[in-house]
Amino acid sequence: MKIVAGNSNRQLAQAIAGYLDSELTQCAVRRFADQEIFVEIQENVRGEDVFVVQSTSFPANDNLMELLIIIDALRRASARRITAVLPYFGYARQDRKSAARTPISAKLVANLITEAGADRVLTVDLHAGQIQGFFDIPTDNLYAAPVFTRDIKERYETNNVMVVSPDVGGVVRARAIAKRIDAPLAIVDKRRERPGESEVMNIIGSVDKRHCLLVDDIVDSGGTLCNAADALLSMGAISVTAYITHGVLSGGAVARITASKLRELVITDSIETTSAIRAAHNIRVVSIAPLLGEAVSRTALEKSVSSLFD
Amino acid sequence: MKIVAGNSNRQLAQAIAGYLDSELTQCAVRRFADQEIFVEIQENVRGEDVFVVQSTSFPANDNLMELLIIIDALRRASARRITAVLPYFGYARQDRKSAARTPISAKLVANLITEAGADRVLTVDLHAGQIQGFFDIPTDNLYAAPVFTRDIKERYETNNVMVVSPDVGGVVRARAIAKRIDAPLAIVDKRRERPGESEVMNIIGSVDKRHCLLVDDIVDSGGTLCNAADALLSMGAISVTAYITHGVLSGGAVARITASKLRELVITDSIETTSAIRAAHNIRVVSIAPLLGEAVSRTALEKSVSSLFD
Ligand SMILES: Nc1ncnc2c1ncn2[C@@H]1O[C@H](COP(=O)(O)O)[C@@H](O)[C@H]1O
Ligand SMILES: Nc1ncnc2c1ncn2[C@@H]1O[C@H](COP(=O)(O)O)[C@@H](O)[C@H]1O
Repeated sequence: MKIVAGNSNRQLAQAIAGYLDSELTQCAVRRFADQEIFVEIQENVRGEDVFVVQSTSFPANDNLMELLIIIDALRRASARRITAVLPYFGYARQDRKSAARTPISAKLVANLITEAGADRVLTVDLHAGQIQGFFDIPTDNLYAAPVFTRDIKERYETNNVMVVSPDVGGVVRARAIAKRIDAPLAIVDKRRERPGESEVMNIIGSVDKRHCLLVDDIVDSGGTLCNAADALLSMGAISVTAYITHGVLSGGAVARITASKLRELVITDSIETTSAIRAAHNIRVVSIAPLLGEAVSRTALEKSVSSLFD
Repeated sequence: MKIVAGNSNRQLAQAIAGYLDSELTQCAVRRFADQEIFVEIQENVRGEDVFVVQSTSFPANDNLMELLIIIDALRRASARRITAVLPYFGYARQDRKSAARTPISAKLVANLITEAGADRVLTVDLHAGQIQGFFDIPTDNLYAAPVFTRDIKERYETNNVMVVSPDVGGVVRARAIAKRIDAPLAIVDKRRERPGESEVMNIIGSVDKRHCLLVDDIVDSGGTLCNAADALLSMGAISVTAYITHGVLSGGAVARITASKLRELVITDSIETTSAIRAAHNIRVVSIAPLLGEAVSRTALEKSVSSLFD
């Protein structure tokens, strides 16, 4: 088995290799003067089962092209099987036509990964389960829920917590965690009464005297999150913590979160953290390296990964 | 017929539309906060013959993804035929394995463009003719030679010019121009005697008392070009001018060229020019908009483009 890393998240790739008592395969992923990507696999991979770890996070286009070019090089170097490991799958929010004459970029990206030569895909908390159906190659979509659940149980008496979905679209995801920790579920129902007016946050469920745990897959600008925290606190919540798998954290997100009333935002290392994130007093990162390491190991041994969901 | 432009070279796309007495199709190509690309075609294109003008020049990965996502949106909007017009085809220099376990990125890019849904490709002075064979869809590779030949004839008495290939690999390309203007051909033969030593420029053919015209497809760092100019002048050339289709001009290229002994570097607008290029005293840009406009027009009318090569 070989593990190859692009440049998007070498730290996580290294940690996955470490979990497997292995080392990253020597592989140069560099740029020419005009910034075109150049890849050279520096070890023999003929007949090998190869896992390429690369998140298609910001800068998504560069990271995606790195992934595709690495896969191309591996295929031409006679790798036996290539698994694209995408801890964060970029472009996933473009999973349906949002208006007439718009693309479905998540499907395009699925096609590109397949066309480049990937035989399997391994990813974490896909924005929509439907995206698995965009692939005709086997895909495994791991859940970070067990990692979060363990963290929650270490820190909270689950008899006074409330799991909260930040919107109606995220109820299923939040419920999965609520069920694991045997806690009740509340929902933030955002409504804009009239176009142009600001959104009103209506909370479904009583959060009074509860520690609220907001659960979601992606935190991007952080705006919705901070507003939801305010709404929950105004409804009597004792504290608000967010457990969100993918820390996209665009623009002023980190500043917005550090200035907010959120007790803590817990994210995973599916996207490499910046120094601003690491310096933030109320952002904490839990690693999914063991989860991915175990999934890689089982895939290599042709064993099922389904018990990783327990 | 519809002409859609990405963001890489809107000026050229506009000029092509102008040549065709047409206008660019309304199309928003924007970014989300995390810099993922979003496309919305704002006019009906159902049943239309659509030409997407986009050079995959720097930043190549962003420009390529824009092209692919635009094609995806057009296909889903029921365009009848989609022609990808790439005035500059990036990644073309990675057209063969340069070492063991390296990619052939030009072939990967050809596959991606096809997979996204292009029905045809129109490009200019491909780095290698073989790249046409990387596609299974029809491709037309136009030559800028007629545009350059016209410019040369306007400026030089062809009885005292010499066409020069900057390396042995470019002889065929240079000879095509030499033949058109009925001028002799010289070749710069770069050799490195021993690894680590600097290259020696050996000129094949007498350039004494001649105006030298260096002909090539890509000028990137400009280093080879400026060295070739020095070598030619030291062998008695009266002046050295370069006619090079694609002005990649990475890093300090523009500064290197303005400080060199080159009388002039003539490039086309296949890659959008920067303000530094436009300000350079010895760089001039000739437009290939009429060439591309004519090719688009003939393709739309199902007519041959071969006479454009005369
Ligand atoms: N990178 C992105 N950043 C912000 N919004 C996006 C992005 N990609 C897609 N979207 C939009 O997000 C919406 C889908 O979000 P959701 O309802 O959470 O699945 C659609 O309206 C998309 O147009
Ligand atoms: N973007 C690029 N910038 C500089 N060199 C490149 C680039 N892409 C490929 N190459 C190298 O250029 C060489 C091919 O150039 P050529 O011999 O002119 O076809 C190969 O050794 C490639 O590794």
